Amino acid sequence: MPIQSELTPDPLVLFGQRIVQLRKLRGWSQEQLALECGMARSYLGGVERGKRNIALLNICKLADALSVSPAEMLQFSKD
Amino acid sequence: MPIQSELTPDPLVLFGQRIVQLRKLRGWSQEQLALECGMARSYLGGVERGKRNIALLNICKLADALSVSPAEMLQFSKD
Repeated sequence: MPIQSELTPDPLVLFGQRIVQLRKLRGWSQEQLALECGMARSYLGGVERGKRNIALLNICKLADALSVSPAEMLQFSKD
Repeated sequence: MPIQSELTPDPLVLFGQRIVQLRKLRGWSQEQLALECGMARSYLGGVERGKRNIALLNICKLADALSVSPAEMLQFSKD
């Protein structure tokens, strides 16, 4: 179910932008990343648009597929 | 619903240990952290024991309550 966060800036949107950034660094399409991490492309699309409250195991699967640490996946704020 | 990860080491267990570490650094009980981030203590207990596949918005709420960045919450592996 699509979800909307009450936080500003919305961490789901920031996370989605981070995925797009890491994916494009590798020159991958959404389809290709979805295949690499065993997710449906439509689900991954929702994550990239900040519409999905993705859980930790899927964050770790994406990190594995993108060859970054789980912590690097969340390096999207002003920290 | 409790969940078991197929990854080794289990990122849910590593994340739970990280929460306990950050919570104890602040000298907080589980009860106190649960209050600070507006979660049920029993849910937080499950997260700390690695039994819950916590989602991104709750990871960010815990980060806020513990005054660390979301990325620091995931600094639990050999990265």
